[in-house]
Amino acid sequence: MTEVASPPSERTRVRRASERALYDTETLYSILDDAYLCHLAFSDERGTHCIPMACWREGAYLYIHGSNGSRLMKLAASGAQVCVTVTHLDGLVLARSAFNHSMNYRSAVIYGAFEVVEGQHKADAFDVFLENLARGRSSEARPGDKNELAATTLLRIPLDEAATKVRTGGPQDDADDMSRPVWAGVLPLAVKPQAPVPDGQQTALPDYVRQWTLRSLAL
Amino acid sequence: MTEVASPPSERTRVRRASERALYDTETLYSILDDAYLCHLAFSDERGTHCIPMACWREGAYLYIHGSNGSRLMKLAASGAQVCVTVTHLDGLVLARSAFNHSMNYRSAVIYGAFEVVEGQHKADAFDVFLENLARGRSSEARPGDKNELAATTLLRIPLDEAATKVRTGGPQDDADDMSRPVWAGVLPLAVKPQAPVPDGQQTALPDYVRQWTLRSLAL
Repeated sequence: MTEVASPPSERTRVRRASERALYDTETLYSILDDAYLCHLAFSDERGTHCIPMACWREGAYLYIHGSNGSRLMKLAASGAQVCVTVTHLDGLVLARSAFNHSMNYRSAVIYGAFEVVEGQHKADAFDVFLENLARGRSSEARPGDKNELAATTLLRIPLDEAATKVRTGGPQDDADDMSRPVWAGVLPLAVKPQAPVPDGQQTALPDYVRQWTLRSLAL
Repeated sequence: MTEVASPPSERTRVRRASERALYDTETLYSILDDAYLCHLAFSDERGTHCIPMACWREGAYLYIHGSNGSRLMKLAASGAQVCVTVTHLDGLVLARSAFNHSMNYRSAVIYGAFEVVEGQHKADAFDVFLENLARGRSSEARPGDKNELAATTLLRIPLDEAATKVRTGGPQDDADDMSRPVWAGVLPLAVKPQAPVPDGQQTALPDYVRQWTLRSLAL
């Protein structure tokens, strides 16, 4: 078991349902590693925004990328303070009372500022991204050329100011409600691979497509 | 076919990959109605935050709720400008070049301010929430009593300042890359019901649990 650490800062201290808060690295990494997407919140002169972004973790950083021309990328690259959140919904929790209905979820909230990644590290990081999507992919797809890499901003945010919140298990009903004749329990949800859709004429089937197909057939 | 409308405001005008932008109500509602969760971004004196929240749509509003004591609820109830985002990831798009890899997704971004919902409308709205989780549930679970309702803040945000972005289909490769001997296509993802987990002794199985079980067995 990982020790439950303390919040790394005041703004990462979970106040609501704080018994669900975890601050250990293992939980944080497992939540991030299950995600293809994060939500990035930032503020500019137009207000506060919340934009979905592809993301991946490498070491103690979460990476995002985008076109140089994007105002989001420009703002994030400027060192502005942002908040990045990853959430997985694991199930609907049906309690005997309306009030005690809940959801099972795993969420990670990261505070901080992005930094720009350049040079060889930039090319290498995109390989990690491709490998996260499909193992072996980075040696198959044509790598980014100089222009493509130059047109793309790569950013990373350190994971040292983060908190996670996890709810698992069944409903927490009031004692008075336990004898009510109403179904109670969890209706679980999971993100599942579906049958691959090849584009045009195909070459040999790579392992990751075969695996995806098998996973799409598994219950 | 719904007509593709114009952005309702300057801050909802999609600039990046604007060919994926849609501003019609039908697309917006379908994205929201597929969601159990949104991400709520707001700013306070500590900075910008991004918090996952349960949500549901009724008419031209998106609803959220939470404990009166929550600072998020207090801030949202104050009429502060916020941004609420719902995103569904539908698949990984594997192109022949690293640069053209993409994701299929549906996202909705809503700008505006929440308003507090009170009175009979408040109790009715929670019934809609329960029905969204499981049809028939609102007549089975014990309804919220006066204290439970009073301890909960119910908020709704109008959907008149929103934009959606949708990507579907296969990779868009450069012509020069089309003959490369690399697998290309979509690895789809979908949120799927998993086998229900009953809590303790069970009563008769409601329809929504039977349906959930059947859907969990379907490929």
